[in-house]
Amino acid sequence: MFKKILIANRGEIAVRIIRCCKEMGIEAVAVYSTADATSLHVQLADEAYCIGPAKSSESYLNMENILSVATLAGCDAIHPGFGYLSENSTFARLVEKCGMTFIGPSGDVIDQMGNKSVARQMMIEAGVPVVPGSNGSITSLEEGKELANKIGYPVLIKASAGGGGRGMRKCFKEEDFEDAYKTAKAEAKACFGDDDMYMEKLILNPKHIEFQILADNFGNVIHLGERDCSIQRRNQKMMEESPSKALSQELREQMGKDAIKAAKQVNYRNAGTIEFVLAPDGKYYFIEMNTRIQVEHPVTEMVTGVDLIREQIRIAANLKLNYKQSDICLNGHAIECRINAENPKENFRPSPGIVNSLHLPGGFGVRIDTTLYQGYQVSSHYDSMIAKVIVHGKNRIEAIRKMRRVLSELVIDGIDTNQELQYFILHENDYVKGEFDTSFIENHLDELVNES
Amino acid sequence: MFKKILIANRGEIAVRIIRCCKEMGIEAVAVYSTADATSLHVQLADEAYCIGPAKSSESYLNMENILSVATLAGCDAIHPGFGYLSENSTFARLVEKCGMTFIGPSGDVIDQMGNKSVARQMMIEAGVPVVPGSNGSITSLEEGKELANKIGYPVLIKASAGGGGRGMRKCFKEEDFEDAYKTAKAEAKACFGDDDMYMEKLILNPKHIEFQILADNFGNVIHLGERDCSIQRRNQKMMEESPSKALSQELREQMGKDAIKAAKQVNYRNAGTIEFVLAPDGKYYFIEMNTRIQVEHPVTEMVTGVDLIREQIRIAANLKLNYKQSDICLNGHAIECRINAENPKENFRPSPGIVNSLHLPGGFGVRIDTTLYQGYQVSSHYDSMIAKVIVHGKNRIEAIRKMRRVLSELVIDGIDTNQELQYFILHENDYVKGEFDTSFIENHLDELVNES
Repeated sequence: MFKKILIANRGEIAVRIIRCCKEMGIEAVAVYSTADATSLHVQLADEAYCIGPAKSSESYLNMENILSVATLAGCDAIHPGFGYLSENSTFARLVEKCGMTFIGPSGDVIDQMGNKSVARQMMIEAGVPVVPGSNGSITSLEEGKELANKIGYPVLIKASAGGGGRGMRKCFKEEDFEDAYKTAKAEAKACFGDDDMYMEKLILNPKHIEFQILADNFGNVIHLGERDCSIQRRNQKMMEESPSKALSQELREQMGKDAIKAAKQVNYRNAGTIEFVLAPDGKYYFIEMNTRIQVEHPVTEMVTGVDLIREQIRIAANLKLNYKQSDICLNGHAIECRINAENPKENFRPSPGIVNSLHLPGGFGVRIDTTLYQGYQVSSHYDSMIAKVIVHGKNRIEAIRKMRRVLSELVIDGIDTNQELQYFILHENDYVKGEFDTSFIENHLDELVNES
Repeated sequence: MFKKILIANRGEIAVRIIRCCKEMGIEAVAVYSTADATSLHVQLADEAYCIGPAKSSESYLNMENILSVATLAGCDAIHPGFGYLSENSTFARLVEKCGMTFIGPSGDVIDQMGNKSVARQMMIEAGVPVVPGSNGSITSLEEGKELANKIGYPVLIKASAGGGGRGMRKCFKEEDFEDAYKTAKAEAKACFGDDDMYMEKLILNPKHIEFQILADNFGNVIHLGERDCSIQRRNQKMMEESPSKALSQELREQMGKDAIKAAKQVNYRNAGTIEFVLAPDGKYYFIEMNTRIQVEHPVTEMVTGVDLIREQIRIAANLKLNYKQSDICLNGHAIECRINAENPKENFRPSPGIVNSLHLPGGFGVRIDTTLYQGYQVSSHYDSMIAKVIVHGKNRIEAIRKMRRVLSELVIDGIDTNQELQYFILHENDYVKGEFDTSFIENHLDELVNES
């Protein structure tokens, strides 16, 4: 087992990983920007090193500095968390070149799954259903138009290097195709430096269903059930749950098998997520694979009892999986609400500032993953997510009621958050009935924001 | 189901019950003494009423005031928590007389189990093993001496009305009997106003093992496994866990059956605990039944997934048990550390004061039941327990490691606590190996306190 792990991240995921290291008897090394000098992850780590100024490109994305710290501190592995360098194949390879272990898949797999059109092609080869669309990239506007007519409108034009909804356009009719194609392509170029594009049929009213995967170096691959992440705003997830009300046990098993098939196709190792869209007719399609731990991993932990970060570390240390597929069952129901420092009434304007009063509710089945403490300064330099509130109940309605209780008790004073908005979602009729798809927030936003 | 429940208690157990009410859609009414006006239970309740001055006898034990508030506020049930009026049969009967439901067993059962010699007699009738000793009370010094010779020294002389180690004396030889008997009797008179005494053989190096019971009004009785509460100081539990390392599955089933037999013998209803001593030879003996929820109930909740407060409320509302015996299995391992405002280095002197800095650790498998918040004033008027830290791990060693991590992260500044002492217990070799009995703290105290 590793003796010392550097956590190349900040915020609650850094805290989450440091805690896991401590529980495993592994020393944890934190890195931080000057803006994060008093952050919780710095305080909790066994050692902490400043790696640059507030700007992420000069600190949390600064590979040289991070690798220097890891080497000098005598680390034998690096955990990248999510975001930042977690899906950067160059970094993964550099870590290995420096004689350390990258806690994640190989650089090659990151590359393959990072290129969405390559990933799509590999899934077709594996026999995993994908959304009807282009096989590989679209090389010209004309080719795109032709294909769109063939698969039928509406279509989705996407950047191969895309993510987070950028470099992506919906197109409902032929007249609009040229414009959508060109703006998506330009955005892709600007955002990712890569304007390679592909196209899919646009599935209307889909649910976002993803499967958690664990794969070791000995060919063992299991899935840990699904997460329903359909509550999104502008392709940013807000609230996640497991299991999904939309899946029968039969469908769960079928999708789970396909998720394992997908992971095996790319010789995946470590933790990963296979994302699907689920159409109202019950058909599902692979959309992408995330080759890292995800923000919403705690809901899976709560229903399966499996510590995913611990398994990531064990797998990277070349240990066999602790679990067989038959060991995994989904007990009860878990929900996660992401608490963001933002003001939903002012178009979700970020709300940095000092948290001058804080009350984190506790109790049975409640987990809060956060870096907040009383007096903490929420920085304007980073992502606005400041806490993840996770609850576990015997069934979905108990989990909803528990989350309502917890959100009604949570106090974060000094900054604006989306706490009230989340609270109202939990009371929305369609949400409670489980009748929602990825357009839920868009369709209910006015009503929800006016209420709160 | 009830519409409104009054919680006749304070501190973390009042908070625990209020949270449960909220999750069940029941209004929660808090009561408080003048010393508790800014307490968390007051802030979280839907309504809160002052019932008297700081002194418990004039507030939390003031039946008239509590019943007046409950009646005026329109409550249909009262939850007594633990301590205070929870095992007061007069109060239980008065609640019912006022047309409300007492969330607990009947006054008669409280009386029967409250009198330790009556309880013992009933267990003998039920065929549940009891420690060899007097059948009923000892009526004279001579009778006591004769019996002690018959069952063999050492013996334990106990007050029938006793609890918490008061009115109790160990006696190792005949010459000391008279003195032990007389001082125990005098203490019983002073503490409980009742000097009825009984006697048992003193089991040396016993473990304290208790079984959680749930019983509804329809004759259904289940047990939820055991708790090992052997880590005690002066008969006050400090750290509890479930399951116990000392029990084989066979012994667990046998003791569980006897626990159910005990509950059925007295037509028990609601949540209760059957306490046993487990001798080094594997023999076990009933010692007493607690007719209320217990401080350490969370460890059972963590391993069974059953919300015990919710079940208490459901049973009192005349609903059938949600679980059959076969639904109950013990998953993983849970440990609870009681954090007390006291200084172990100064003979556990209570340490009231203001908590000027607070960090409650979170994460997977961590639960903290507390009333603390930054700025909270720990009162000198009440019990020194200010927080319960509970962890759940896949197995015992993972739970121990998690608890070490959590205690190393916990910050409660401004007062002294037993946090460090608990931390050192978790590193003590015998504790880690599971080789401990009720004398563990006594035997290790010097070493533990000097370390911390």
